[in-house]
Amino acid sequence: MLRVPVTGAAEHRADLLAVEEPLEIRVDGEPLTVTMRTPGDDIDLTVGFLYTEGLLGSLDEVHEIRMCDQNVAAVTAKPGRVLRYQQADAPGAARNFLMTSACGVCGKDSIEAIRVRSAFDVAADPVRVSPAVLAALPDRLAGAQRVFSRTGGLHAAGLFTRDGTLLALREDVGRHNAVDKVAGWALRSGLLPLAGHILLVSGRASFELAQKAIMIGVPVLAAVSAPSSLAAELAADGGLTLVGFLRGTTMNVYAGAHRVSC
Amino acid sequence: MLRVPVTGAAEHRADLLAVEEPLEIRVDGEPLTVTMRTPGDDIDLTVGFLYTEGLLGSLDEVHEIRMCDQNVAAVTAKPGRVLRYQQADAPGAARNFLMTSACGVCGKDSIEAIRVRSAFDVAADPVRVSPAVLAALPDRLAGAQRVFSRTGGLHAAGLFTRDGTLLALREDVGRHNAVDKVAGWALRSGLLPLAGHILLVSGRASFELAQKAIMIGVPVLAAVSAPSSLAAELAADGGLTLVGFLRGTTMNVYAGAHRVSC
Repeated sequence: MLRVPVTGAAEHRADLLAVEEPLEIRVDGEPLTVTMRTPGDDIDLTVGFLYTEGLLGSLDEVHEIRMCDQNVAAVTAKPGRVLRYQQADAPGAARNFLMTSACGVCGKDSIEAIRVRSAFDVAADPVRVSPAVLAALPDRLAGAQRVFSRTGGLHAAGLFTRDGTLLALREDVGRHNAVDKVAGWALRSGLLPLAGHILLVSGRASFELAQKAIMIGVPVLAAVSAPSSLAAELAADGGLTLVGFLRGTTMNVYAGAHRVSC
Repeated sequence: MLRVPVTGAAEHRADLLAVEEPLEIRVDGEPLTVTMRTPGDDIDLTVGFLYTEGLLGSLDEVHEIRMCDQNVAAVTAKPGRVLRYQQADAPGAARNFLMTSACGVCGKDSIEAIRVRSAFDVAADPVRVSPAVLAALPDRLAGAQRVFSRTGGLHAAGLFTRDGTLLALREDVGRHNAVDKVAGWALRSGLLPLAGHILLVSGRASFELAQKAIMIGVPVLAAVSAPSSLAAELAADGGLTLVGFLRGTTMNVYAGAHRVSC
């Protein structure tokens, strides 16, 4: 890498970049999807992706997951199980939650689809978290991000207890992958649903991340940056507490504010 | 939205969130993909997506593109044209560039696939850009981002001439969509290949963004944040100049440094 100043001499420097490589997920020999991810925790990523996409209902449906190449995860379903997007899901789309044939695609359809698919009702989760606990999480996440401080190129997702204890931290060039890695780890650890927990993401909160939070039954999703409109709508509709701009000593609560109290 | 401080009283505030809604792209009546995007410039987004994915070689292949719903873009190909992922591209994957059946998926395969597909050879572009011009671009982009300053939730892509004049700015909740909107606008404006131009993105530079830059023939991709390893590899291999951490008065050049000179 060449460090170039506007004035003065350029100099060569060593640099550590966030590793990005494609992971192909195959199910019963057929390619399902490819995601650009940071290698590591690939089994968790695969399981988490299948689960948060609604393709996998439990680990009992899986016979085996094997890395048959450093960038290929081969999933074998148990006899009679079909871990693939169904006909109604519009084959060919990666975000199949969002495809409905009746009236085209709109946020409302998508939100309905998610609510139907999640095995858990996060709206019923009675947990309360204090603003002070929430405010302390970003520093705790950043402190645990050893890689981040060196490359500056990785998104992070952290799973915390309601008193702010970090249970799991995963990093990835893709923020959805970081969350899927946490989801897969939690599923394989027998922790679902993640009732009473907090999921913190280092960047923005998209519809997709709110969707994944609901799928794994976590009642509080917090983001260091802004949420999108559809993330806020989904959270409000699904009973998910959505916190954004969690920085310093303040935060914005976009949905489920009843859970944020001392 | 409820603004909650760690100490003191919470207060309700009005807030403007970045709009995120799904766009379904249909080709000849069949769903091709769904992308979560910020509405606006949807025809450009559709054309740009098809073009940078290598599904569309020129506008001559399109009979019509019509928004048949606010979130559905219906593309009709001219007779004999097939604007879809081909068999060899592994049906079912959204990132079909990355699918190869022979040896699984690896960065090298992906890079080969891109190089073959682009109609333009950015490596041959003789343009030079000065560090001072590059250093001035982020402020120019941010200044032009009217929406950004209010929501904090949008990625931006800006197309500049080699002397730093902003030609086009597009914003989106998805960084790849912001680039596709610029690509589609440039294609429809008859500007491809974008020889001698600079594409600036407000965040990180992924493999996907480097790929899109090469597809539209832009020789310099600059990012305010970090590139990924595969973005740097693709840039080096494809002759694309890749600038990262473009902040203040310095920048890191990861590939094609011969173009960055006074």
